[in-house]
Amino acid sequence: MGTEVTDLIARMTLEEKLAQLVGLWEGRDHSPGESDGDTAVAPMQDSMQGEHAAFEQYARHGLGQLTRVFGTAPVKSADGLAHLAERQRWLTSSTRLGIPALVHEECLTGLAAWRATTFPAPPSWGASFDPELVAETAAAIGDTMARLGVHQGLAPVLDVVRDVRWGRVEECIGEDPYLVGTVGGAYVRGLQSAGVVATLKHFAGYSNSRAGRNLAPVHAGPREMAEVLLPPFETALLDAGAGSVMNSYAEIDGVPVAADAGLLTELLRERWGFTGTVVADYFSVAFLHTLHGVADGIGSAAAQALTAGIDVELPTGTGYLEPLAERVRSGEVPEEVVDRAVRRVLEQKQRLGLLDPGFADTLPTGEVDLDPPGHRALAARLAEESVILLGNDGVLPFGDGAGRIAVLGPNADDPAALMGCYSFANHVLPHHPGVELGLDVPTVLDALRGELPGARITHARGCDVDTDDTSGFAGAVAAARDADVAVVVVGDRAGLFGRGTSGEGCDTDTLELPGVQRRFVEEVLGTGTPVVLVLLVGRPYVLDRELERCAAVVQAFFPGQEGAGAVAGVLSGRVNPSGRLPIGLPRSAGAQPYSYLHPRLGAASSVTAVDTAPVRPFGFGLSYTEFTHSDLRVLDDRVPTGGSFTVSCLVRNDGDRAGADVVQLYGSDVVASVTRPVVVLLGYARVELEPGATAEVRFDVPTHRVSLHDRAMRRVVEPGTIELFIGTSCADPVLRSAVELTGPVHEIGLADRRQVDVEVRLR
Amino acid sequence: MGTEVTDLIARMTLEEKLAQLVGLWEGRDHSPGESDGDTAVAPMQDSMQGEHAAFEQYARHGLGQLTRVFGTAPVKSADGLAHLAERQRWLTSSTRLGIPALVHEECLTGLAAWRATTFPAPPSWGASFDPELVAETAAAIGDTMARLGVHQGLAPVLDVVRDVRWGRVEECIGEDPYLVGTVGGAYVRGLQSAGVVATLKHFAGYSNSRAGRNLAPVHAGPREMAEVLLPPFETALLDAGAGSVMNSYAEIDGVPVAADAGLLTELLRERWGFTGTVVADYFSVAFLHTLHGVADGIGSAAAQALTAGIDVELPTGTGYLEPLAERVRSGEVPEEVVDRAVRRVLEQKQRLGLLDPGFADTLPTGEVDLDPPGHRALAARLAEESVILLGNDGVLPFGDGAGRIAVLGPNADDPAALMGCYSFANHVLPHHPGVELGLDVPTVLDALRGELPGARITHARGCDVDTDDTSGFAGAVAAARDADVAVVVVGDRAGLFGRGTSGEGCDTDTLELPGVQRRFVEEVLGTGTPVVLVLLVGRPYVLDRELERCAAVVQAFFPGQEGAGAVAGVLSGRVNPSGRLPIGLPRSAGAQPYSYLHPRLGAASSVTAVDTAPVRPFGFGLSYTEFTHSDLRVLDDRVPTGGSFTVSCLVRNDGDRAGADVVQLYGSDVVASVTRPVVVLLGYARVELEPGATAEVRFDVPTHRVSLHDRAMRRVVEPGTIELFIGTSCADPVLRSAVELTGPVHEIGLADRRQVDVEVRLR
Repeated sequence: MGTEVTDLIARMTLEEKLAQLVGLWEGRDHSPGESDGDTAVAPMQDSMQGEHAAFEQYARHGLGQLTRVFGTAPVKSADGLAHLAERQRWLTSSTRLGIPALVHEECLTGLAAWRATTFPAPPSWGASFDPELVAETAAAIGDTMARLGVHQGLAPVLDVVRDVRWGRVEECIGEDPYLVGTVGGAYVRGLQSAGVVATLKHFAGYSNSRAGRNLAPVHAGPREMAEVLLPPFETALLDAGAGSVMNSYAEIDGVPVAADAGLLTELLRERWGFTGTVVADYFSVAFLHTLHGVADGIGSAAAQALTAGIDVELPTGTGYLEPLAERVRSGEVPEEVVDRAVRRVLEQKQRLGLLDPGFADTLPTGEVDLDPPGHRALAARLAEESVILLGNDGVLPFGDGAGRIAVLGPNADDPAALMGCYSFANHVLPHHPGVELGLDVPTVLDALRGELPGARITHARGCDVDTDDTSGFAGAVAAARDADVAVVVVGDRAGLFGRGTSGEGCDTDTLELPGVQRRFVEEVLGTGTPVVLVLLVGRPYVLDRELERCAAVVQAFFPGQEGAGAVAGVLSGRVNPSGRLPIGLPRSAGAQPYSYLHPRLGAASSVTAVDTAPVRPFGFGLSYTEFTHSDLRVLDDRVPTGGSFTVSCLVRNDGDRAGADVVQLYGSDVVASVTRPVVVLLGYARVELEPGATAEVRFDVPTHRVSLHDRAMRRVVEPGTIELFIGTSCADPVLRSAVELTGPVHEIGLADRRQVDVEVRLR
Repeated sequence: MGTEVTDLIARMTLEEKLAQLVGLWEGRDHSPGESDGDTAVAPMQDSMQGEHAAFEQYARHGLGQLTRVFGTAPVKSADGLAHLAERQRWLTSSTRLGIPALVHEECLTGLAAWRATTFPAPPSWGASFDPELVAETAAAIGDTMARLGVHQGLAPVLDVVRDVRWGRVEECIGEDPYLVGTVGGAYVRGLQSAGVVATLKHFAGYSNSRAGRNLAPVHAGPREMAEVLLPPFETALLDAGAGSVMNSYAEIDGVPVAADAGLLTELLRERWGFTGTVVADYFSVAFLHTLHGVADGIGSAAAQALTAGIDVELPTGTGYLEPLAERVRSGEVPEEVVDRAVRRVLEQKQRLGLLDPGFADTLPTGEVDLDPPGHRALAARLAEESVILLGNDGVLPFGDGAGRIAVLGPNADDPAALMGCYSFANHVLPHHPGVELGLDVPTVLDALRGELPGARITHARGCDVDTDDTSGFAGAVAAARDADVAVVVVGDRAGLFGRGTSGEGCDTDTLELPGVQRRFVEEVLGTGTPVVLVLLVGRPYVLDRELERCAAVVQAFFPGQEGAGAVAGVLSGRVNPSGRLPIGLPRSAGAQPYSYLHPRLGAASSVTAVDTAPVRPFGFGLSYTEFTHSDLRVLDDRVPTGGSFTVSCLVRNDGDRAGADVVQLYGSDVVASVTRPVVVLLGYARVELEPGATAEVRFDVPTHRVSLHDRAMRRVVEPGTIELFIGTSCADPVLRSAVELTGPVHEIGLADRRQVDVEVRLR
């Protein structure tokens, strides 16, 4: 492989090389309504000369990437394919080297294209604790992309949740790095199994911004980076083999990641051996000048970014074309640094078949069904596995006995309420007023009507998600009074930069349900009619009072286009809820940031008057059946620091209906050379059990799962006691044991880092 | 000096050495009501065998320090002196080496002893922007201590405010490291001018704890440490020559400071050349075992702390006696490490005269006036300079015309409301019910009656500081209705661990005025009577609505025993307010942490929906007169990176009464190799001006004031533009200029770091 690319590079002019390092985002200026809603990026758009130039002029030396051919505006698949084929044929036939462009799209909750299936958002993946199903889902997404000639998807997001005030929590899998790494890694495996390159976002640190504000500075020490924020990337690269990485916008302790060779080259390339491409988060090359102030212009920004290790400038080339060329010609940037990036880009194109002679003849054409029944079924399954039952006084499931049900709230009858910010519905469609989503998406109201044909269902909206209009309270309260039970569906509306209450730029400083929704819930509670509260949310909210007063509380995050059926299924009882909180329910906005992974000192309530413990902890979730855990065994309770230990337990379904338990194994390092979290999730297993059935769950835990970064920042396993427990959440141990690690301090190498093997055997 | 101590050490047994490294806190078990209210430290008390042993048994090998002889319980000075003399005579006559103990006390807001003057708390020092007056105050405090035979004071606190939810904000000077360093350094100079050793607290990082919770982990990168949290310590050590340092309880990125040789030895000793003593924050040696989990017992904790660089265990020896002796005997801890600490302790005792042969004959006796008129006058002056006028529609000053005034609120008639958590009143007295403070402390109500003899003043309390009792609302509202103006005095009650709303352990997650006070203010506003809101607070609170609706808002932090007169003086007009906010007024608890020293990116409101800008910024404060700034000049607008630049401007008092302005010079580094704060306070000058008078203020700014820590963590000055402005706050520029730094990158050495010279000349 190397030879062909080496020969190619040797034949390339500087302009041809740089052309391979940029994208082109067409179609943006055809949609005047579309912008990032973001004055911070507005200055950039002026300088994106290429966007306004004719494609042929821009791409005369070739083109690295085509940006969001399908994901910029509503376009029928056949039309998009025709346009794409025209572009690729022109590139292969009319540029000197004939290299086609790599095509990338957003695909976090499914391909963000018109009429493509919208799957649940990442917190739901985390809630399912089911990496295999996430892998299947990603494979389906990748299949659709491959059929459209798309080569790279800008997902998954591996940022570990550190502060739920942040608007992008809805793009994250959870607050535990191991859960994020295993579930995110599964997404990578799935997407790439379809031949589509996964892109790990946002490398690194983004989620840890000060006060949960988007793009605010990250104050993290090297150990917090190494133990919390980086491990999911390590897992997804080394275990799942992700092909691309996107830098984060963040600055960490004063250094913008886009200019940080320590992260982008030393860690990523030299330590982890990554050989794929690093692509710029949109506009982040220019941000080095305009927002970070570490460059005095776009040329310096480009030089710094390329040198640090960003191979491809997205969405469109600004700095990586003429400004960078000047610096290479002047000798300021060695051409070898350009070649390094070009080699990575061309090798990726080669692996994808883009350098194959017959490439232009293999381009797909015709109409593609982007929402086939099989994908819908997957979307439904993942949604069903991820709905979390947070509270239930017995009102659920409704069963057949449901009489009069008032379905209330702003999210009860809104299909967009089911979808995250990176769905086509909420990311792109708002820029195209009048265009319909093009999918048949049942709302919670629709789904309940279908699910409970015998019930008398009324509906009132009551209020908006995010205005202070209370004029609808009275009608909804009246409907509640006339009902046996009120299903109140509240939460977020995902959107970009102030267009929503959750999503990119939609940070919050209250963690109360947005707008007047909390008051609305109280008004309905005031009727005395039992309330089933349903949350379609991008982040967990403060729900202390609601959990005390509502008959039941169901949290579904953004469950995707089939999510209403999952919610209705849980309410009816067709679906036995099995989701577990991937992020604890916060006590208050003023108690943020919070993570269950705090050290002992952070948990010492005696030294502070503020209770910051979550209202419901990480890992928590109820079921309609009852699981009993027993027989916790540690196979060998003394193992060497460089080895592994095996923990097994039994889980029995003691109820009268089938269900799934998530068996959670936690560990606690009692004495270490640095402070350690009170508990850490070591492994987990989702176990489906018929009534009366028992399974044995066996975790084979390599000791690197209890490794730490010592005072010298070496990653080691230290001898000593690891207390273990099986818990129904990180805060609810039910079985306890311990293992003793013996021998000398063991330094962890990359080869040590296999994941926990989990075996589930029915007995 | 060295020889005598060297000889002494050579003669000492291991037990005699270790005895010099511990304190003894007597009297605690004589006061069953007293505890830290803190179950986290309770386990320690069991192991403090020494506290229960007879003094003679405990001190048979000698004794390093006596802990809080006067500050533990109400004791008349003559009785305390007699007790102390007895102890010192026993030590000099009945131990083999005859070395007396060093005596330390708390003294943050004045010596924390019964009947000693209580001065304003540190935020008031910051608000005064008057280091010289703070130095005078500290000299007075030191004078009292010296007259009692006290050698060391556990102040000042140099923690830079990073999150106002933290309960200990009231012990801090402000959110700007330069203000903290200069004012804190002045305190050090003052205290030490009286022969009393100052102790810098809490080295380092404590104020940056996660979510503002006491003792929660600190997630700070090395650059944030170097540029924000450490500089005040550097200033107070290298410029002011502080004699002692106390470690912080914090763990920083996983490493407890009490076990961190990097901070306690490499930075403090090897880089900064510090030769004084490092004393343990109370119980922090044991906390390495009990709270941090980095030691498996008290012996290991002691070994780690001593090795890292903690010389003296306070308040009482637990680990540094037999447990440490065992480890020295076994060879685990080299005796040289013990000797290193003993040398520092003995050299300090030598400098203080404790090794002088006639020491025991010089011990003071008799009654000492701990609250002399001169100290009261100083306390009043500092309070007067620190009261901040936050809003005023013209209702203030009252002048002679004040008619009927309703003085309302829980802090209106409570002397303890004027004092911080580290005052004797709020730190010690609560443990001795029935004992009176012993000082004649006028309340705001008293002071207003004295200040406005012609006014008809009524009073109602209205509510408590921290309960939800609203039964007093009606009476207070009625009083407001019958008045021409209502003075509503609300805020905090300082106390330890849940005994108060501000102070150690009294963190918050709301930043609303505690209890029902905000509602109370609204009730009074509802009467239509103009409201003058007076805040006696330990931290800034959310006051957005109050600033809109109240006729005037006056913030005084904890102004000390003479503070009521200062507040009443501002209200009457006798005092022209001149305090400036040393910490901005927060927008919400959910917007914390916040600092005005955020980089550009953190200020980009376009990328986040949350407005985190303070309601009133750092440096803000109104006056009854008007100041005009003009003629900003930069003497030489191109200076070498290793030099200095001179900025001058004029300030004129355009009003009709005398007053003081705080001229504030800010700088902004436009392009740098790392991200920089949007603005940084470079220098400040408090300028007293008669009506019509003009002064020229000249700042000679060494370039190290715009130094940064580059990518390699070298402290350097880089060439480029520094934009400058004179502003009435960090967010209100009134005059702009710039200076160009030229030449190569200049690496800053310790010798470069002289402070900004400020010259004020009346014209």
